Amino acid sequence: MDEEFGSTIPTMAKYDAININGVNLGNWLVLEKWMNPALFDGTTAEDEYWLPRQLPADVYEARMKTHRSEYINERDFAIIKSWGLDSVRIPVPYFIFGDREPFIGCTSELDKAFNWAERYGLKILIDLHTAPGSQNGFDNGGLSGVCTWSQQPEEVDFVLSVLERLAERYGNREGLLGIQPINEPISERMWDLMDIQKRYPPVDAEMAKGSKGNSLEFLREFYTSAYNVIRKHMADDKFVVIHDAFELDAWKDFMQSDEYFNVILDTHQYLMMAEMEGCEQTIEGYRNFVENKWKPMISEMQNYFPVITGEWCLFNSLGCGVDTKGGQSVLNGQMGDGAVNRNDEERCEIFCAAADMQLEVWNECGSGQFFWSYKLLTDTVNTPGWLGWDSWDLGRCVAFGWYPTSPVKQLIKNY
Amino acid sequence: MDEEFGSTIPTMAKYDAININGVNLGNWLVLEKWMNPALFDGTTAEDEYWLPRQLPADVYEARMKTHRSEYINERDFAIIKSWGLDSVRIPVPYFIFGDREPFIGCTSELDKAFNWAERYGLKILIDLHTAPGSQNGFDNGGLSGVCTWSQQPEEVDFVLSVLERLAERYGNREGLLGIQPINEPISERMWDLMDIQKRYPPVDAEMAKGSKGNSLEFLREFYTSAYNVIRKHMADDKFVVIHDAFELDAWKDFMQSDEYFNVILDTHQYLMMAEMEGCEQTIEGYRNFVENKWKPMISEMQNYFPVITGEWCLFNSLGCGVDTKGGQSVLNGQMGDGAVNRNDEERCEIFCAAADMQLEVWNECGSGQFFWSYKLLTDTVNTPGWLGWDSWDLGRCVAFGWYPTSPVKQLIKNY
Repeated sequence: MDEEFGSTIPTMAKYDAININGVNLGNWLVLEKWMNPALFDGTTAEDEYWLPRQLPADVYEARMKTHRSEYINERDFAIIKSWGLDSVRIPVPYFIFGDREPFIGCTSELDKAFNWAERYGLKILIDLHTAPGSQNGFDNGGLSGVCTWSQQPEEVDFVLSVLERLAERYGNREGLLGIQPINEPISERMWDLMDIQKRYPPVDAEMAKGSKGNSLEFLREFYTSAYNVIRKHMADDKFVVIHDAFELDAWKDFMQSDEYFNVILDTHQYLMMAEMEGCEQTIEGYRNFVENKWKPMISEMQNYFPVITGEWCLFNSLGCGVDTKGGQSVLNGQMGDGAVNRNDEERCEIFCAAADMQLEVWNECGSGQFFWSYKLLTDTVNTPGWLGWDSWDLGRCVAFGWYPTSPVKQLIKNY
Repeated sequence: MDEEFGSTIPTMAKYDAININGVNLGNWLVLEKWMNPALFDGTTAEDEYWLPRQLPADVYEARMKTHRSEYINERDFAIIKSWGLDSVRIPVPYFIFGDREPFIGCTSELDKAFNWAERYGLKILIDLHTAPGSQNGFDNGGLSGVCTWSQQPEEVDFVLSVLERLAERYGNREGLLGIQPINEPISERMWDLMDIQKRYPPVDAEMAKGSKGNSLEFLREFYTSAYNVIRKHMADDKFVVIHDAFELDAWKDFMQSDEYFNVILDTHQYLMMAEMEGCEQTIEGYRNFVENKWKPMISEMQNYFPVITGEWCLFNSLGCGVDTKGGQSVLNGQMGDGAVNRNDEERCEIFCAAADMQLEVWNECGSGQFFWSYKLLTDTVNTPGWLGWDSWDLGRCVAFGWYPTSPVKQLIKNY
């Protein structure tokens, strides 16, 4: 099965030949509280930065090591392969090499993942998901409400050194699909538009001072430097994957010369964000948005780069039975009050449609996708307000027959 | 789907109407080191008793709580349902109610499990898997090499009080299939035959002094007392499930009067034990053993009780490529040296056959089965000597298409 996948690795001239069918291993090596709140028990920490600062060192270590050994393992790679997928995107933290106390490194986990991937015929996209000072101020950037990384040249250099070490360690592994220099660096426009510090309030005002989005000039320079340090060590047929900074059409004049090859442009699209842009909360509304907004956008950019949708999912307000206001979670105090309690048939109709309409665009107009995420422990039964959030969990989407390559769904279709 | 399952709940007269299609949630609330060695890192503990005695209390707590929150969750119940199963057997420890320091109770986890089971239409068999002083001296009995429980009347009473509290708390839950008073109490004959203290050496010779198997007289008395305290609180249509103590034919004159109803006899059968009894290590050898030993045994006892095989799996030496000498694991220093490296096709042929031949007996002669186990983290790729041990992991057996109700296998058959 490896050869089959390998044969689709393209030259730059034929972007259509790339079609990644993958899933993110979110919340494994980079924590997100909403995906497993128990890890944060007994603390007020909302992000990875503050967790070790509120726990005794040995307790922090015990939680992290137990989590990392249990959350993803060999069996998950076998299961993902059985769903017909070919790749995993693995978010890793900037402290992966264990050189940023009090954090604990995790190269041994990534080493194991490469062995599992190669055993089961999957490819790994290494996604550097956080940076010191944060590149976006999201909780999943590791430091809520702070965005100062790009203003600290020594930390930009540190990230480049992490990328170089990743390329040295994994750049020639059969199981490597590519390396993504930084996840979701937020643009100046989006920093203001999303009102990040209201959504993710900073804990330490002093630390957050001067936070702002990343300029596109900075990102172009950073991506160029990152390309060079990665390519120095990584095999030519592997990819450098750059995130669009939420500005998909800003990259038409970037890395278009022959000097740069096997570069993928990564965009993240969620129906909950479409809703914030006015998308009607009906199946037809979602379909119209996907057809009229995302499809032309991705089709156009596919002229410049292979475009993947590196994060997306089935989550939407219609399926939740309540307007989620852009996916405000229970952690933000939104409890889903007044939600319509959808039955399993309604849920199936809504979420199957959400899967089919989105996958069509990611695959037919773009170069494929990674679902966000393989697994989350969010409990829709025992905790109030989380109804519908199982649509972020590919494990449950497959079990419910919502995802088209789900063996369960295939069986239903065959009868 | 609940109704469908409910309609098969039998009266005592029609044992054939019971057909349990289930899986154990082993290593969740009762630890077994070989199923997730990382939890025991940094200690020499081989069992649940010694683990908290070698770790600082807060580190022990951090490992246990993280493990319990991650190992089994809502998504696992949805996934098990999607495999076409109807029940889970959940091993619980004697300290489930949190009244035996230094252990940490786990009723909140079992409470959640009932909510998940009822949401997804699964039934739970609560299996009390350990007892103070141990009922078998196995590592999975919680205290290797020690078997003194039945000689301590106050601890026998303690176990009865745990059973009574379990029946009070869960006895009328829609999601309850039944309660098993004690897992694998070892008979005197088997204690000697298996040379338990050689296989599971005790840490503390003083504590192990006087260890011996449980007499059948003791077990009959204990089971009768257990039946009475459980039945006092548990709905009539739920089951009391008694393990055969590895003496399947010893129970023909037990609980046969009308006073006792909805009692299931549970036997555990593993091909690795058949090998120890001389079963030839070929597919035909296994088939002969299953047909000529297990089938008549179970068929006969089905005249007295509905008989389930509450533990079994696909594991066998042929599939491992090496004589495992009764499943001696890497933990016991057996490294699988000289193993034939089986390719995926050979593995599929061997393990599919092992599934089909065993399930036929469990279902057609007996009243169904629980596979051992839903999940184990044993890493066949990164740790030497574990090749073939994935055949204990139903998740991997389903992913590989070895298990007949696996949606993956069904798909292959349909094409």
